[in-house]
Amino acid sequence: MTAETVLVSADEERAIVCDVLQRYGASPEPAQMQANWLLEADLRGFSSHGIERLPILVARMKRHLIEPDAEPAMSWRTDSVLVVDGNRGFGPVIAQRALAAGIQQARTTGLALIAISNANHLGILAPYVESVAAAGMIGIGLSTSEALVHPWGGRDAMVGTNPIAISVPAQPSSFVLDMATGQVSMGRVLHNLELGVPLEEGWAVDADGVPTLDPVAALKGAISPFGGPKGFALGLALEILVASLTGTALGRDVHGTLDADDVCNKGDLFICIDPQIVGPTGSTDVSSYLGDVRATPPQPGTTGVRIPGERTAAERARRVTDGIEITMSAWRAAMALLEADREETGDSVISDDVSA
Amino acid sequence: MTAETVLVSADEERAIVCDVLQRYGASPEPAQMQANWLLEADLRGFSSHGIERLPILVARMKRHLIEPDAEPAMSWRTDSVLVVDGNRGFGPVIAQRALAAGIQQARTTGLALIAISNANHLGILAPYVESVAAAGMIGIGLSTSEALVHPWGGRDAMVGTNPIAISVPAQPSSFVLDMATGQVSMGRVLHNLELGVPLEEGWAVDADGVPTLDPVAALKGAISPFGGPKGFALGLALEILVASLTGTALGRDVHGTLDADDVCNKGDLFICIDPQIVGPTGSTDVSSYLGDVRATPPQPGTTGVRIPGERTAAERARRVTDGIEITMSAWRAAMALLEADREETGDSVISDDVSA
Repeated sequence: MTAETVLVSADEERAIVCDVLQRYGASPEPAQMQANWLLEADLRGFSSHGIERLPILVARMKRHLIEPDAEPAMSWRTDSVLVVDGNRGFGPVIAQRALAAGIQQARTTGLALIAISNANHLGILAPYVESVAAAGMIGIGLSTSEALVHPWGGRDAMVGTNPIAISVPAQPSSFVLDMATGQVSMGRVLHNLELGVPLEEGWAVDADGVPTLDPVAALKGAISPFGGPKGFALGLALEILVASLTGTALGRDVHGTLDADDVCNKGDLFICIDPQIVGPTGSTDVSSYLGDVRATPPQPGTTGVRIPGERTAAERARRVTDGIEITMSAWRAAMALLEADREETGDSVISDDVSA
Repeated sequence: MTAETVLVSADEERAIVCDVLQRYGASPEPAQMQANWLLEADLRGFSSHGIERLPILVARMKRHLIEPDAEPAMSWRTDSVLVVDGNRGFGPVIAQRALAAGIQQARTTGLALIAISNANHLGILAPYVESVAAAGMIGIGLSTSEALVHPWGGRDAMVGTNPIAISVPAQPSSFVLDMATGQVSMGRVLHNLELGVPLEEGWAVDADGVPTLDPVAALKGAISPFGGPKGFALGLALEILVASLTGTALGRDVHGTLDADDVCNKGDLFICIDPQIVGPTGSTDVSSYLGDVRATPPQPGTTGVRIPGERTAAERARRVTDGIEITMSAWRAAMALLEADREETGDSVISDDVSA
């Protein structure tokens, strides 16, 4: 029960995506940065954030909802607070520029908070906080997103799937958490729909708020928060925390990450903390502790303990070697974008469309 | 199925606790600050963090594991990073002093991170972040705690119940989240044991890692993380994040919040963020959004949506008016501490005991 796929190498995927993005108006560097982010998602097995997103990116570029060569307007409000206007740029471009500045500053201040508005979809958060950990710092990343999750006890989608990412430097590899506060992604529901597989219990409710295993009913309803009332509370807290600090939209007013109609008005927040400055030169040995946690005797009937991020890292390594299985539909869509453009003149594709 | 209780007013409880703490060596101000924290827990219905803790506090004072009049040694590493040695003081004294300094600083810097080690148990986190919200700021509070939670897929307790608290200013009252990353507290298991009531599914495992509804078996086993693998991942992330930045202990090496034997070596972390400095003077209307979330049509068979913290606030208001039901055992233990001391001379109670 798998969809038809095509096996491509990381280099192939990157080249195709770069090619498409450049043909629709992106310069080589931003095209490469955005392409790398789709590729990273596919390498890690998060296909809903991978090349599947390319058609929507192009549609948004054509409508000037994405300005591919936009650079962030960065303003240090204080020595440790960076406010960033993304100027409708690619999420990965804006966020990486901002993070580079934040990491640099945190080496002196110990701490930097980065509040981003007006950037397009950042994609998966893990690689951002990984880059913070690679600089020897603790990274926290938060994004709001379109309302897909129902409040605990409520019928309608009112809260984003609001992911939280946390990285902590460790050996041999840094600890990396990247999780949404919804039980599953809407991409997962669509995936089950495509395969004709029912949902699992607790994933979603239908339009009347009744728990459902039917992907079609779930698409008309809402994703459930992970972890019951606590997970709902956390997702809601992150929604208002990020929105308050970025001046961005809340709940059903959030648009522009899944559609090609609206300016992207969600917010993104990063915190970089340098343990060299904050932490006492302590005996705290995170690496050794993580080893102990990993070695906890397994619960009966389980395969034992996994440290967050490690399975993803293994999946990534496998795909770097063996290639990435991309659904035929996503691959054909990418190819169609190349072909469509070849039939037109590059510029007219852009200028013929109405700016949003 | 309720335990035998006694009804006391807030003033009575505060006075009794203050009296006990002072008789065992605390000066009036720290005694009052610590007493207020136990009282706040009882007012909000978190009895495991209320007057039930008094005997352990006194035992720790007698062994100099708590130095009741200790003040924090506060060191600003940078303009926005405050490192605090709690000098074995009362948790609420150390944390409130540190937070006052952090809030003051964040008015200028926009952001303050407070890393606390060597403080005793802080008690419930909500009132700390409430005080940050009362100053118009966003507050984040994190504490590590003794290993009571098993990793997802693992048999033994390896992770603290590591609470997270988040406050965001709003009208008519600020948003306040305060939740542990365990499914329930060990206090809740003890409560069910006392009442002879089985646990609920998913709360705990026995010593072999098998899910159990038996409180006795759970006490020999471990609490389950809330929210399955995601909740485990979050709790683990918070454990290493806090420990890294405070230079404190991890996992099974954390001691001194539930016992009277060890120095308290967990860590506490606060972040204060001033939206006046960070946030664009935005259209983000948290209060109105929270109203919309609260008004979400209820799921069938539920009582509808509750905003985190609101039920607790209502419970608190009720107990301020009607009084607090304290278990007879906790009340008798408090009384016994007063009586025991009256039979001795205050100082000898302290000096007869071996310092830890």
